[in-house]
Amino acid sequence: MADEQKTRIAVDIYGQTYKMVGTETSTHMRLVASMVDERMREISAHNPYLDSTKIAVLTAVNSVHDNLKLKMQIEQLEEELNKLKG
Amino acid sequence: MADEQKTRIAVDIYGQTYKMVGTETSTHMRLVASMVDERMREISAHNPYLDSTKIAVLTAVNSVHDNLKLKMQIEQLEEELNKLKG
Repeated sequence: MADEQKTRIAVDIYGQTYKMVGTETSTHMRLVASMVDERMREISAHNPYLDSTKIAVLTAVNSVHDNLKLKMQIEQLEEELNKLKG
Repeated sequence: MADEQKTRIAVDIYGQTYKMVGTETSTHMRLVASMVDERMREISAHNPYLDSTKIAVLTAVNSVHDNLKLKMQIEQLEEELNKLKG
């Protein structure tokens, strides 16, 4: 995708502004940013002694964990589909 | 799950030690931690001026983005399965 077609927005996540560049719509990018912001605030509420870096790392840990679970779910669904098709 | 059945490990992510508690195996938890560490180092390599918090937030942003894409893929697979079953 040509550079001029990329979406460029500024979003606020946990009190900091981030400039994001991507090939997705701004709606999608804002949704992602708001989900990260919300998760960070949830972790912070349960662990008020943690600094921003640790809160962000734990948010990333939870998201990567979700990622692996979703990939397992996709594998199962694909297996089921192949059985039905086969 | 009873508290004593939980997995408790210490992992290193981007030079910091994190105590993790979870219902997953220690292998799974170590894999997640190493993936976050690797993603943070990749982002850092491309953006050497960013501080740890921003690197961790961007890692979380990428992972949440991946999650949304995987969820869309799951919806499509489930739709396809339902058609075949119906």
